Amino acid sequence: MFRYPIIIKLHETDAAGLLFFSQQFKLMHDAYESLLERIGFGFAVLIRDKDYFLPIVHAEADFKYPLFVGDRVNIDVSVANIGDTSFTFAYKLTLEDETLVGSGKTVHVTMDKKTQTKISLPSDLRRAVSGQTDNS
Amino acid sequence: MFRYPIIIKLHETDAAGLLFFSQQFKLMHDAYESLLERIGFGFAVLIRDKDYFLPIVHAEADFKYPLFVGDRVNIDVSVANIGDTSFTFAYKLTLEDETLVGSGKTVHVTMDKKTQTKISLPSDLRRAVSGQTDNS
Amino acid sequence: MFRYPIIIKLHETDAAGLLFFSQQFKLMHDAYESLLERIGFGFAVLIRDKDYFLPIVHAEADFKYPLFVGDRVNIDVSVANIGDTSFTFAYKLTLEDETLVGSGKTVHVTMDKKTQTKISLPSDLRRAVSGQTDNS
Amino acid sequence: MFRYPIIIKLHETDAAGLLFFSQQFKLMHDAYESLLERIGFGFAVLIRDKDYFLPIVHAEADFKYPLFVGDRVNIDVSVANIGDTSFTFAYKLTLEDETLVGSGKTVHVTMDKKTQTKISLPSDLRRAVSGQTDNS
Repeated sequence: MFRYPIIIKLHETDAAGLLFFSQQFKLMHDAYESLLERIGFGFAVLIRDKDYFLPIVHAEADFKYPLFVGDRVNIDVSVANIGDTSFTFAYKLTLEDETLVGSGKTVHVTMDKKTQTKISLPSDLRRAVSGQTDNS
Repeated sequence: MFRYPIIIKLHETDAAGLLFFSQQFKLMHDAYESLLERIGFGFAVLIRDKDYFLPIVHAEADFKYPLFVGDRVNIDVSVANIGDTSFTFAYKLTLEDETLVGSGKTVHVTMDKKTQTKISLPSDLRRAVSGQTDNS
Repeated sequence: MFRYPIIIKLHETDAAGLLFFSQQFKLMHDAYESLLERIGFGFAVLIRDKDYFLPIVHAEADFKYPLFVGDRVNIDVSVANIGDTSFTFAYKLTLEDETLVGSGKTVHVTMDKKTQTKISLPSDLRRAVSGQTDNS
Repeated sequence: MFRYPIIIKLHETDAAGLLFFSQQFKLMHDAYESLLERIGFGFAVLIRDKDYFLPIVHAEADFKYPLFVGDRVNIDVSVANIGDTSFTFAYKLTLEDETLVGSGKTVHVTMDKKTQTKISLPSDLRRAVSGQTDNS
């Protein structure tokens, strides 16, 4: 499990006073980016050096508890599934007292940059991502 | 059906060259806001004058086709479901040649501003939203 | 003068109830993008087909009047200056009753994509941009 | 001097491959928010408990060096000026090798929430902010 701590920023809230819903998706992705970087596949590397990219084909989230500016939230990221040409990350957002405030998942496919077609997960990426499954 | 036309902006793309996924959720919400305003429940009215608000408790989206800066997209919004204390909007994103590029939905509950508890949809809101169902 | 009409969206406001300041810069850029597209230099063209890009080296804005969700604002864009390797766009934001709510400017340089050095404005771009000066 | 370290996120870049300019303003504000919280005037406190707010009336920035996803940047915040009804924060963005990549400032006024008129800086806020001047 990879934990990514954040503090809700003013620009992430809206005039209704709470976190704007799409910002949770953005924050989930920030956590995912940080995890990818830790396992050697940061976006700078993916964009510059790899011949594939990892577009999101599906995303979903539940919003269980309103979040205010200044709230401290931990985002726990884990791998929920690894297929042949895709993988799924799962996210849990909790307050410091462990209250669950939100959750979500993102489904990614491995896409060849040139042909724009799906390819099998490269073995080094598969190995790196596998190390992030919940029961590892 | 309510159609909301947009053009993908530079700031909505990322260094991978395409629309960043959470921006589709934001764009879906822009379309929803525009629909709400047309039926008399714009956010200015909701925030200033109403004793309830309409937080999103679930959202999901599929991403079917990469979108670039300058792409012209129509977002069609319709009501997928109306319950006692909640309603669901559905979204379809198409190019001008009708290619489906993405879809999604958002589930909203009616929440009393003071008590922060779910309430039944006020009848005027229910009536207004019902007029936006697909088969109306 | 190029006029770009917008409606303030919920996600552009923050928990203080008003437009978040950096969103005015984003909206100014949206107007600039729309103007560029109209004169044949849209970002899709700039990114795909040109060997230069137009990075912003300076930006500033004044915020004169609070903006709420749903407010209708016109952004007027004009060219304030054209130099050898740079140009400046000026922006005025007004309500429909012509109240000035904000203003700003962005200074751009012409940068060669390969060498990452400043170059003189290509003549076709210079001609197109010149057509957008205030007194044209 | 208050230092706020960040890593450039994918969603802060655009299809030209670099940090989108308005994101620098947002990041400057994130640093300012963090400073305010450290000196006891976090936005949660300002929004809920104070009878004034601190709207930005002017902002500007210079962009000196392109920033990529994954770049590690330190944002140094200091108080550049304190007037009767306003104050100015200055920002410097540097890479870890101290390369200056950008700078900026934001001018804030103290505004009474009810009357929407400028008021003198409350003495506790003045004292707290004064402690953040460069030569303190």
